[in-house]
Amino acid sequence: MQISQTALTCTQSPMRKYHPYAVQAEAKGKKVYHLNIGQPDIPTPSAFFEAIRNFHEATVAYAPSPGIPELQKAVCDYYAKVGVNYQPSDVLVTTGGSEALLISMVCVLGRDDEIIVPEPFYPNYHTFATQIGGVLHPVATTPESGYHYADTALLESALTPKTRALLLTNPGNPSGTVLTAEERRLIADFVKKHDLWLIADEVYREFVYGGEPLSSFGTFDDIADRLILIDSVSKRFSACGARIGCLISKNADVIANALKFCQSRLSVATLDQIAATALYSTEADYFASVREEYHRRRDTVVRKLKEIPGVVCECPGGAFYLMAKLPVDDAEKFQIWLLEHFDDHGDTVMFAPGQCFYATEGLGKSEVRIAYVLNQNDLERAMDLLALGLEAYNRETSGK
Amino acid sequence: MQISQTALTCTQSPMRKYHPYAVQAEAKGKKVYHLNIGQPDIPTPSAFFEAIRNFHEATVAYAPSPGIPELQKAVCDYYAKVGVNYQPSDVLVTTGGSEALLISMVCVLGRDDEIIVPEPFYPNYHTFATQIGGVLHPVATTPESGYHYADTALLESALTPKTRALLLTNPGNPSGTVLTAEERRLIADFVKKHDLWLIADEVYREFVYGGEPLSSFGTFDDIADRLILIDSVSKRFSACGARIGCLISKNADVIANALKFCQSRLSVATLDQIAATALYSTEADYFASVREEYHRRRDTVVRKLKEIPGVVCECPGGAFYLMAKLPVDDAEKFQIWLLEHFDDHGDTVMFAPGQCFYATEGLGKSEVRIAYVLNQNDLERAMDLLALGLEAYNRETSGK
Repeated sequence: MQISQTALTCTQSPMRKYHPYAVQAEAKGKKVYHLNIGQPDIPTPSAFFEAIRNFHEATVAYAPSPGIPELQKAVCDYYAKVGVNYQPSDVLVTTGGSEALLISMVCVLGRDDEIIVPEPFYPNYHTFATQIGGVLHPVATTPESGYHYADTALLESALTPKTRALLLTNPGNPSGTVLTAEERRLIADFVKKHDLWLIADEVYREFVYGGEPLSSFGTFDDIADRLILIDSVSKRFSACGARIGCLISKNADVIANALKFCQSRLSVATLDQIAATALYSTEADYFASVREEYHRRRDTVVRKLKEIPGVVCECPGGAFYLMAKLPVDDAEKFQIWLLEHFDDHGDTVMFAPGQCFYATEGLGKSEVRIAYVLNQNDLERAMDLLALGLEAYNRETSGK
Repeated sequence: MQISQTALTCTQSPMRKYHPYAVQAEAKGKKVYHLNIGQPDIPTPSAFFEAIRNFHEATVAYAPSPGIPELQKAVCDYYAKVGVNYQPSDVLVTTGGSEALLISMVCVLGRDDEIIVPEPFYPNYHTFATQIGGVLHPVATTPESGYHYADTALLESALTPKTRALLLTNPGNPSGTVLTAEERRLIADFVKKHDLWLIADEVYREFVYGGEPLSSFGTFDDIADRLILIDSVSKRFSACGARIGCLISKNADVIANALKFCQSRLSVATLDQIAATALYSTEADYFASVREEYHRRRDTVVRKLKEIPGVVCECPGGAFYLMAKLPVDDAEKFQIWLLEHFDDHGDTVMFAPGQCFYATEGLGKSEVRIAYVLNQNDLERAMDLLALGLEAYNRETSGK
């Protein structure tokens, strides 16, 4: 039986590719410190659970296809605080930010139409684009420049007659890069000048460590008709398993067309929507303490990386990831070696090899993504293991 | 800004198209009896709510991409009772049957590849196929033949060099038609002979009223490698708002490729999966009483329809829908007229006009789908309103 070319063109999740090696390492009694996945360890605010326990309908019925009105309104109230004026009808609730991305792409990309994305990028973007017949066109950045992509000449180098949109994550995953106000303006001007859609994935909005106010591309009125915002409760409220995101746009055509796809899958889980609505009443001090925690962790990771000779890493401004170039020939080989052949007092460490965040062949081979989702002690230990591992690996591979 | 051709080719949900007319009728004080949507009024078993209330993790984390192992196992245990032997690794948990359909199609349909579907069919099939670049190829059936499609010559008439798959719903939505054992064998032989995939949407499996045992295409060992089953807890346990379905196949290539799309959206809602697992412990007497209730309702609807002169309707064997041909020029016009211009003591009725269940231009114009999801009293009243409405409409439109 023949599998479709579309499916064959997609790849297995690179983040989960190394899972069997970790399982094997753990079966041998090793303790693996996981810096490889974006699952935060922060508790979900209790409002989520209270809302679910207070549900007393007899039947768990379909919700409206655009989302429950209470959640659409809660999202708008939240955006008002960020300085953006959205109406509930501008918001479609989706099954995670993932579905918002898929639906956005199918609304703006026809067959073989291209979407520019700065690389390194979130690898699932590739699957979403391929699934609906679009093409992801990467623009490469480098560890040496701190993965900087807000550069008109760089972005223009990716334009073709088939370019329809620019997709970006800000704050960035995997790079942790945060756009400055000037850079956001530059991006807005770029999409205006070239008549492109802008799909802005802003799910890490709260995770910025420079003391700056929260930002959104939604604040630029002059690109409102070409902007599609991707948002989610997953990281904001440490509620990844709720699978509640949304697609937001002031372009009524986008909403009307996106709604067709929302209707085709009927609705988003009813109880999770109710619980997500409750999350939006979370007090500001929750975010302050979470931000402080991640800030401290980022500083730990960067400090530890700077102590390792040969590492290239600029201190990133946000999210809970960073990319670093390691003094190794091949980060994938190094990762597998760490799991198979290395331990320090029974411990080893796992990150996400960098190649999978690039579409351009050969890029990212010496890089890794580190997710700082462990508590302070574990994080220090994990970074020490990385340093020890690097030393041992390079000693072994250089034959000394 | 230009919306993609893919999105423009899709249509708004026909089921929701008449919603504004209903809102307006209700605003004028009319009571509308809804026979138009498939939202059952049966309570969700309490095990669902208990499982959610017993969740005491601090963080609502991502579930594994293929689904939680407990739910995969529960689905297999259920199939063992239906006489089909599946392994947990044959089961991918999806966000409703909807996502299972979308993922199945992207796995087997390349660009412009065709999938045969007997019409009338569930309209969202069209959106799923279009979204991933496939083409739905309908084979028309008629009310006069009870929407019978298990006919080799009929199915073969739809074959083209681009045909890759056959998609069917059994028991049928919208027709309520249930395949006999001989008809299922005929379908299995058809897909074998022409080397096609079979996507069998069996979400209404429990809703059969002829006293027959539960059936599944999974029982045919000789098509196991070409079969993809679509399943869901929505109708089975009256838990539509949980959005828990699954894609099942013994073809390891299908599972490996479908998993890529499951990984790209990370996971299905964690709490709903836990609650859905609990649903599978529901006792057999629950199904017996639900089946009895729908059986009674179906008999009521069919009896009432037979009393109306000029209606064409064969008694369907399952699901909680039936299609009927009414003695009207245009069921859509009739529906809008019922909402705008008709009432009996302040009451009117709503069904789903038939055209939207057909892809072939001009078919289904006089037909309607009736969902018998109301209690016995309301159902009797709704059917009386249909009879009264038909009489008044035909009197008015014939100018008498």
